[in-house]
Parts: sequence; structure tokens; C-alpha cells
Amino acid sequence: MDHITFVPTVDQMNYTFGGADPVMRIKPGTVLTLWTEDAYGGRITSVDSVAGTALDTEDLNPQTGPFFIEGAEPGDTLAVHLVDLTPARTWGASTLIPFFGGLTSIPVSPTLQEPLPERTWIYEYDPATHTVGFAARGSDFEVALPANPMLGTVGVAPARREVRTSLVPDAFGGNMDTPEMTAGATCYLRVNVEGALFSLGDGHYRQGEGEACGTAVEGAMNVTAIVELIKGGGPAWPRLETDTHLMAIGSGRPLEEAWRASQVEMITWLGELYGLDKYDAYQLLTQIALNPIANVVDANYSTLTKIDKRLLPPAPAYGGIHAELRSAGRALGTISY
Amino acid sequence: MDHITFVPTVDQMNYTFGGADPVMRIKPGTVLTLWTEDAYGGRITSVDSVAGTALDTEDLNPQTGPFFIEGAEPGDTLAVHLVDLTPARTWGASTLIPFFGGLTSIPVSPTLQEPLPERTWIYEYDPATHTVGFAARGSDFEVALPANPMLGTVGVAPARREVRTSLVPDAFGGNMDTPEMTAGATCYLRVNVEGALFSLGDGHYRQGEGEACGTAVEGAMNVTAIVELIKGGGPAWPRLETDTHLMAIGSGRPLEEAWRASQVEMITWLGELYGLDKYDAYQLLTQIALNPIANVVDANYSTLTKIDKRLLPPAPAYGGIHAELRSAGRALGTISY
Amino acid sequence: MDHITFVPTVDQMNYTFGGADPVMRIKPGTVLTLWTEDAYGGRITSVDSVAGTALDTEDLNPQTGPFFIEGAEPGDTLAVHLVDLTPARTWGASTLIPFFGGLTSIPVSPTLQEPLPERTWIYEYDPATHTVGFAARGSDFEVALPANPMLGTVGVAPARREVRTSLVPDAFGGNMDTPEMTAGATCYLRVNVEGALFSLGDGHYRQGEGEACGTAVEGAMNVTAIVELIKGGGPAWPRLETDTHLMAIGSGRPLEEAWRASQVEMITWLGELYGLDKYDAYQLLTQIALNPIANVVDANYSTLTKIDKRLLPPAPAYGGIHAELRSAGRALGTISY
Amino acid sequence: MDHITFVPTVDQMNYTFGGADPVMRIKPGTVLTLWTEDAYGGRITSVDSVAGTALDTEDLNPQTGPFFIEGAEPGDTLAVHLVDLTPARTWGASTLIPFFGGLTSIPVSPTLQEPLPERTWIYEYDPATHTVGFAARGSDFEVALPANPMLGTVGVAPARREVRTSLVPDAFGGNMDTPEMTAGATCYLRVNVEGALFSLGDGHYRQGEGEACGTAVEGAMNVTAIVELIKGGGPAWPRLETDTHLMAIGSGRPLEEAWRASQVEMITWLGELYGLDKYDAYQLLTQIALNPIANVVDANYSTLTKIDKRLLPPAPAYGGIHAELRSAGRALGTISY
Repeated sequence: MDHITFVPTVDQMNYTFGGADPVMRIKPGTVLTLWTEDAYGGRITSVDSVAGTALDTEDLNPQTGPFFIEGAEPGDTLAVHLVDLTPARTWGASTLIPFFGGLTSIPVSPTLQEPLPERTWIYEYDPATHTVGFAARGSDFEVALPANPMLGTVGVAPARREVRTSLVPDAFGGNMDTPEMTAGATCYLRVNVEGALFSLGDGHYRQGEGEACGTAVEGAMNVTAIVELIKGGGPAWPRLETDTHLMAIGSGRPLEEAWRASQVEMITWLGELYGLDKYDAYQLLTQIALNPIANVVDANYSTLTKIDKRLLPPAPAYGGIHAELRSAGRALGTISY
Repeated sequence: MDHITFVPTVDQMNYTFGGADPVMRIKPGTVLTLWTEDAYGGRITSVDSVAGTALDTEDLNPQTGPFFIEGAEPGDTLAVHLVDLTPARTWGASTLIPFFGGLTSIPVSPTLQEPLPERTWIYEYDPATHTVGFAARGSDFEVALPANPMLGTVGVAPARREVRTSLVPDAFGGNMDTPEMTAGATCYLRVNVEGALFSLGDGHYRQGEGEACGTAVEGAMNVTAIVELIKGGGPAWPRLETDTHLMAIGSGRPLEEAWRASQVEMITWLGELYGLDKYDAYQLLTQIALNPIANVVDANYSTLTKIDKRLLPPAPAYGGIHAELRSAGRALGTISY
Repeated sequence: MDHITFVPTVDQMNYTFGGADPVMRIKPGTVLTLWTEDAYGGRITSVDSVAGTALDTEDLNPQTGPFFIEGAEPGDTLAVHLVDLTPARTWGASTLIPFFGGLTSIPVSPTLQEPLPERTWIYEYDPATHTVGFAARGSDFEVALPANPMLGTVGVAPARREVRTSLVPDAFGGNMDTPEMTAGATCYLRVNVEGALFSLGDGHYRQGEGEACGTAVEGAMNVTAIVELIKGGGPAWPRLETDTHLMAIGSGRPLEEAWRASQVEMITWLGELYGLDKYDAYQLLTQIALNPIANVVDANYSTLTKIDKRLLPPAPAYGGIHAELRSAGRALGTISY
Repeated sequence: MDHITFVPTVDQMNYTFGGADPVMRIKPGTVLTLWTEDAYGGRITSVDSVAGTALDTEDLNPQTGPFFIEGAEPGDTLAVHLVDLTPARTWGASTLIPFFGGLTSIPVSPTLQEPLPERTWIYEYDPATHTVGFAARGSDFEVALPANPMLGTVGVAPARREVRTSLVPDAFGGNMDTPEMTAGATCYLRVNVEGALFSLGDGHYRQGEGEACGTAVEGAMNVTAIVELIKGGGPAWPRLETDTHLMAIGSGRPLEEAWRASQVEMITWLGELYGLDKYDAYQLLTQIALNPIANVVDANYSTLTKIDKRLLPPAPAYGGIHAELRSAGRALGTISY
């Protein structure tokens, strides 16, 4: 098992899915130890940096990658197992960006209202308690919240020759912004181009579902992942597996379309695992689905259909690869950066 | 504390929020022991009853009620605490209804495609194990699922002189179809008309989030509830409280609008409880919200914004009425029907 | 042919479709000469009256009616032919209403942004030139625009026992707010309850498609209409016919669902008129449809599918009733109020 | 004035906006005489070719171009004036494509319903009468419809380093599929990258608004256009001008968001032309807008906000460039291919 460490320079960062030259070629089964810059490109550093002036809006969500996976061909399945996510700074930042977020008008759906005022929050990250500290700006309220490191973006190059900004989630993964993309999870993505061109980034030290204001507790992240390749079987939409749950992630607009995509993907998966016809799978899913929203703020909205494996008989997905990767990840021992 | 038992005859059932004469007048603080017919009006009784022929589509979601709450005036808050929900039959039913549900075209958004085939599933309810049994129709797959009794509809009369069918969820509550509407929860609804005209129904022995096919494990239900009145403070959208969580429920179309409504309602609530200005509340919510979808199948879609109280300092909502009602409910002892 | 004149007192106005007692019973074929108050209930009278303070938000879109049509039964078709619409005042008013309209956040899809400033425009109506005068409030710009009197609301009582505010458009007609609802047009509506309970109101001296700010040039209107009954054949969605065009009006959210409803309604109509199967009708419609949006501001959005009759062979709809009513309307001679 | 003729070989066709090398560099003011293949890549040739088997779904909407416009820089305005559109074949084709179109479920919003049956229609184009002939497949109905040659796609490279398939309409133009994109119109597009990288294609001999089934009367087209460059002033969304109308085109999902974008773009334009503040422009637009839908079938939906210039005082847009290009186009005399 190869083990590669890669910390991109600013010039090596990319801002798209597809379109960028690979930073390196790796073999399936490689362990990657990576560093990712935060979504702001590191430009928000205090409560006095506000988005309107500090950000370069062309250079958001810098990606670490893309990696060319040897042997990956269109139609294959890339399995990305997140072994460990550790905050790489002692603080994260969240900020109101003018005309961006879920509770403001946005350029693609404009109104004539004025933007919300700009405001930035800095969350101190305490590794000892593994918490991030919220401090209100308009009052004295403070509260420490459990950290929950996750990645906003995990994706591959899109199909149909497209190149998409790293702000977009879609069938190729991308900026799905779900708190489920955390250590211990395996993400399955359909390969659309030779080599898959996989990348990740947009670390969040914590995020609620919906990511309402448009930015989580954004922070640079140390990432350990194992990238595996399954020939064929590429799912129509991203799938996610943990020790306890199976998930399918749909992205689109309006939000109900993202939901439909995630539901049908899960119906397909249930059919594969249990031999159910689509109407029985639809029925069963109706009674067992969980449906956490991922984000309602990006260029596409994302939502999950999630089922608790423990409700159903054991049925290893993709030949039990999640358990294997989980075990391989654990065998890496304590991760230290 | 009055304690009233009411089992409606078929003629006493109602099919709207608003518009129906109250079945009785009750004092705030009354304990209600009720029975509710299932959403089908009891017309689906075996796998051979299919919706297209068995249902009376004018008479769905029969309501037990409405109850006229003495002293309730527009702008007040009705608190409905669910003490106990117990299946009143030994089986529940779910069915594909032509052009109804989340993964079919529907009359308000028609396509030219044919309807899905009709199919009915009967779930045996086993009180000993508190499970409902799923049996596939197209194969031999069977699985027992934990029962999770809940109510699809809890609502009051709408504002603006409207009368809405009991199939609709909206600001007045109604057919929200969330698995969170379960024993132990307190639902807060704005009173829109004199006496509030509160009713409930649409028992589900189990339902996944989204209620994809449009029908849960539908079944008649024995319900014990305490109805309390808070003068003033009526929320714009329904709120829900359990021992561990606060929730706000938005309903509308497209789904992101329901989400926005639930988010702003929770921002308002956080402001009330913690004195946060709206931008700080927006920020805090961004990092702590849970966003389970309730349904994507009704005339309006519903979604929740939910927060874990344990993440925040204690701050009793509505003067701690939930804890009081919870305690009063527990004091009723074992419920027997 | 009965000819009835009715000018409602304030107490006789109604604010719902369904739910109100009929103001009178009429025979099919009756000519109605009516007066309708404006959408504001006459409360906006100068540029100094702003919506936030002047309006009674419970009493908007006052209806003249409802009329009980003798013999009308559920499933029948009501044909309302508008013979003449004449402004009943020498001025109309349009106003920005806080959190209402197409380019602001709205209560059912809230953001945290501040409302737009309030502003009212008064349009002088000049009967000689048949124009309304726009005068900018923030500059000296003025322009006279052709008057185009139309009715925002034409509707019947809804199905499923519902009562809807007169602000809502839906399958029962209602607040469709299309500039096509003008003199010379015949509107076909499905009857949902005994007597149909037809009403109209919300006169506009002029309105653009979309009705972007939420209010047209609103004004009291003198209306002459003939109400006819066709047994059976009630359309799923409102249809409209003029000498030159056939139209179907869908209402819903999101806007594409309104569009789908209007398209399928027109496909049904083309099938009735030309014996086309649904796929041929879909194809033909694809190449000939016009799709003006009616409104993107009401509780439901409305859009039209419209075809130019002159592109197709003659095929009188509903046995040629539009031509008959048009002729009967013309025979009434010059309308004077 | 340069005059360049270009007929791409199959290998010179491109399938994206952005990402492709320019086929040539041209000076602003160049007259282009072009040929465009149809949306199917010429693969549908009779009623017996059906989409499911005949099409290469990676190679749809082949573009003629892109052209690198010398001197064009991000933020500039590209003005594309269509001088002439002439069908290049004697027939066009429309076809039902499985899970594509406005009245079927689609992959990004799937249901469990079966696809519509496949069916292809061939429209004979008669240059003498300038009509296309519709012939029903399920009955004997036939009708000749006026031809109305237009282009589905006119676009430039997107911003943010993106490459989009030629099936998508967005702020960069692209597959807007509006019948207004016809001879005599000038389209204004914001330049996003050096050289603009302009292309066009997807000729339609006729299309209704909405393009319901997803395909117009698709046909190869001879195109004469003049491409001009205006420094600065790049609009947020595509604008269109004819001798009689100004239009702004919004694209997005759901459809109301496309509408909002087109409305705000027109409000901006009215402000530029008449010095109106945004609230006065909003008001004026409310009373004069036309809102034809362009398409409800593509990856984004498109709608227009359109105003009749004759309602307003003369105010030449972009220094009157449309009139100049119109005049230059007329001076080219009869176009012959």
C-alpha cells in the first residue's frame, strides 16, 4: 500500500472539478496524507476581515488535487475512505458574504433588497476539549460547541467534457457540504473521465445541516484518506457508507429534485443489496429513510437519503470494501501531523 | 384538570382545518383521550384493497375534532402535548396511490407518463415486540421494523377565513407528516380563530422522513394529549419541543421555501431564548442546525429545523411549559385503552 | 336573457372563494352588470397612502359575488364571458407592500433582509385617450401607457370542501392575474360545488405579465359579463378563449409546475378538438405554444399555455359557445354606466 | 468590414461553452457566414430513427465556433447581430427522447415511472411557402405551420474557469432556446474570458415557447451574423434587442429564479436608459413587462422579460448599435448560400 504525503503550494491549488492537470498519479489503494487550505484561501483571519473586501471570489474552495487514479475509467467506482480529519489551525472562521447564503437573495435569484450587513465570526479550536467556541458579535453570548471535522468538497471530474467550479455539488460529488463527510466514511463516486481526477478540500471544523449562512466553521485541514478503485458499478449519484449507515446524496434545484435523485439512488442500492423490485424498495424506503439536508446555499442544493444498516439484514455493499478500508485505516494507527 | 375521552363516529369525523363545527368545547389544561381513524378512512384492509378503487378521495385524513379551546384568541399559542400514542389495530397499511407520492408525477405537476402500478402492503403490528412487519410483494424479503407511532396531522383553523383540507400542511400545522410528532413532544401552534379549533389524526405506526411513497404505515391510533393555552406569543410557524430538542416546521413549495421558513422561525426562537440578534442567531444556527425533511409528498412539503438543547445553556421555552406537561403526562400513569 | 345589475355594499363584499353565502341566485345565460372595488378595498387614495399603514390585510381583493348558478353541479363547466370592462374611477394605484411581490423576500420564503421601502404610485386614467399615466417618484420621468382593463380574479368555489382567500389562484380560477382576462374573453371553469359560487373582482387598468411588484394599476371596475353553463366537461384547470386564441392557465409553485399543468391541460384540449393522441398533441404544442407568465407574486404562481387558433383548422370549442357569447355581448350595444 | 465564411467539418464542431480551442480569430465588426449542424448531429433522418438508439448523447448541440474576438476582455459586451437564418435542409426533425423534456420525469428529478414511448416527427420544409409540415403519427391530422428560423444556442465561454456543455443555458448565454433568437435580433453577452470564445448552433426551423417535448423542429441552418464588441458594460444576463423590443433572458431553476434574474436585468437596463431609480423601474416594469417563457426543458430553464420599445420614449441602447448593425445587415443584400 503506497503512502503519499502532499501539501499543495498556493500555485498547486485548483478551483475546479475537471479541467486541471493532475498534481500526481497514484495507484488504487494509496493512502494519502494531505493538507487542505480553507474555503477562503486563508484570507479571513480575524473578525475584522469581511468577505466583501478580503475574498477573491474567483479563488474559493481551493482543492487539494486532482489525483489521477491509475486504471480508473468512465463507469468505474472510486471509493474514497476518510481515515482522519484533524484541524490544521487553532481557529476557524465563518462569515456573512453579501448576497450569498440561504437566508438572503442571491445573484441567480435576485431581489431588490439590500444585502445583509457583513460580519465575521472567529471560532477558537481547542484540541484538548475538541470544541470550537462561538462568540456572538452583537451580545455577550458565548458557547463551546463540539468540533465535528468534515470536508465540504470531495469530487471527481464531471461527465460531458464539463469543468465546474469547486463551489458546485452535482452528480460528480463536489461541494456537497454534508456533515456526514467525516472521518470513518467511505464515499463512492462514479468515474467520468480517464483517471477520475479526484480532489478534496473545504474543511469544516463544524457545520450544521443546511449550512444556512453559506459558510461553516471553515478551516485548513489535515486529511488522511485511502483511495480505492472498483471496476464498473459507478453510481448515478454519490453514495456514502459508514459503519452504521448507507447514504445517497442528490444535488440540484429546487431542493425536491435533489431529494428525488437521492431517493431513487437509494432505491437502486436497496435493489442491488436485497434483490427488491423498485416498488418494494420504494415502499421499504418510505418507512425507514432518514433525510437530512446537506446544504441549501450552493449553486446546487444537496440532500441525503440515509438508512440505518442495523434495521436491515447484513448485506455488504461493494463486496464489503468499507469494512476493509475501515480496518486498513485503523491499522495506520494514531495519525500525527 | 379535566379528562375527556372522545371516540368519533364516522359522522363526527371532519376532513378540514377550519370550517367544521367543534365536536366539543374544552378548557385549557384538559387531558384528551382520543381515537383516530386511519388516513384511508379504514378502507384499506388487505393487500387486495388498492387505493384506486377502495378510497374515497374526498374523505382522506379524517380528523378527530375540532375542539374549541375556551379563551383561545387569535395570536395566542396553543400547546398540544402528546402523552401517548398506541396503535389501535394489530396492522397498518401502506399503498401506492396513482399519481400521488414523491417519486411519481402528480396532478399539480403532471407529465404524460403512465401511473405507477397499484400495490398495497400490510404491516402486522406486534405489541409484544413493538414492531411492524414489512413483507415485499415482489419477492420473499421480510423484515420486522421498530414501531414508531406518530401523528401525521395536528392543526388548528387557518387564518384569513380559509378552510383547508386535512391533506395540507401549512402555518396552521396540519398534515406535516413528521416522525417527530410522537409521544413526549409538545407542539406549539398560533391560534388564528376564536377557540383555535384544534384537531388531530392520520396515525402512523412508523414513517421514514420524506414519506416517499405518500403513505406511511397508516393505522388507527389511541391518543392521549394535554391541550394547554398560552396567551399571546403565537409563532409564525409550528414549533415542537421534546426533552432534548427544539424544532420549527416550515411547509411550502418548493422545498427550499419550507426550509427558509423553518430556519427563520428558529432564528426568532433563538433570539427569544438567548437574546441573540438575528445575525448572531443565523450564525449559531448555521453551525448547530439539524434539518430532517418531514414530507415531500403533500400539497405542501414540510421540513424541520431542529436543534439539540444540550448544545446550549438551559433556557426554558414558554416558561418551561413542556417540562410541566411532560410531568403531568407522566403522572397520568400507564395509559390503557 | 336575464340582465341583472349588482353593486355590492361594503358589507356584501366577500374575500374568499367558497365559504360565503351567495349574494344572489341567477339562471345560466344571465347578463351581469357589476361593479368591483379595487384590490385595496379602496384604501389607497394618494401617493401618501402606503400599504403598511393603509391596508387591512385581511380584506384584500374584495369579490363581487358569489353568484349561485342554478343547475350547476360538480363536474359541469361554467363559461364566463367578459363583455366589457370599464374603469370606474379616474385613477388607479400601485404600491410596494412590505414583503410582498416578486422581487422581495416573502413570508413563505423569508430571508433576513430588510423590506423594500414603501412607495405608492397613482396613475391618472384618461378615458379620452384610454391611457394611464406613470409618474416616477424618484425622478421627473413620465409616460402615458395604453389602458388595458382586465380582472385579476375570476373564480368559483374550490373542491374538497376548501375555502381559499381571494389572493390565491388555483384550479378553481381565482387570483390568476393574467392580462388575458379582458373584455372579449370567455373563461371556462370546472364547477366544484352545487351552484358553482362564482365571483370576480380585482380590476386592473393595466398590468404587465408577471405583475412583478405584486400590484397592477389597481382600480374599481365596471364589469359586464354573461354567465353560461355547460353540463359536464369541466376542465381540470381554467381555460380561456378569445376570437384568436385558446389558453389554459396553470397555477402552483414552483413556476414550472404551473407550466406543466397548463401544458397538459392544453394537450387534453387539443386532443378533444382534433382527435390527436397525447404524444402528437405534445409534439404539436411544442412547436406552436405561446407561454406568457401571468403572475409570479401570488400564493401560487400562474402561467398560460396559449395557441393561436389561426394556425390550426377551425374546431369550435364547447360547441362554439364563445362565438355565441361574443355575439350576444356585442348585441348588448354600447355599454354605459 | 471582414466577411468570413466558415462551414465546420465534423471534427471542427465543439460541444461546450469554454474549453475548446478557437476555430479562428476575428476582428470586431466581422460578418460571419456560417453553417450549423442540427442538435442531433444529423443523426435523426427519418421517422424510423428514434433518439434512444440513434443519438450520441455526448455529442448534442454541436457548436459552430468558438471564435476568438480580438480585443475582447472580461467585462466587455459582445453584440451578436443575426442578419439571416435560412434552413439548410428541406426537412427538420423533432423527437421524444427518453427521460428528456418538460412533461416527463428527468434524470435530475427522477420518478419511478416508465419513460414515454419513443416517436420521431419529420417536418418537410417548403421554402416557397416558408412552412414546415406537421404530420401526426397516431392519426391522419396534418397542418402546415409558418417556419420561424431561430437559434437555440448563442453563447460565450463562462466565468470562473468553467466549461459547460452546449445543452446548458446560463449567464453566458448558451442553450436558451428562445424563439426570439431570430434574424433581426442583436444579442448582448458579457465577455468572461479573453477573446470571448463565441459560438452558435442548434438551429430550429420553428419552436413554440417552452419547447415542451425538449426538441424543436431541429435542422441544419445557414447563418449570417455580425459580431461587434463594446468595451465594458457587460450585462449580468444576456440581453436581446430587436427593432421593436428590448429583452433580458434569465436562466436557472426553479423557473421563478430565471424570471427574477431577467426582471432585475431589465430593471437595470431601464435604469441605464431612463435614469429611473430601481423602485421606479420595478414599478414601470410591473405594468409593461411581457414574460414569454423560453424553455422548461434544459439543464436550466429560461424566461424572458420583454418590453415594447414603442411604449417608452426613444432611448438608444449601447449608443444605438442595434440600428447600426441592422442597417449593416440590410446592406449585405439578399443572402444566398
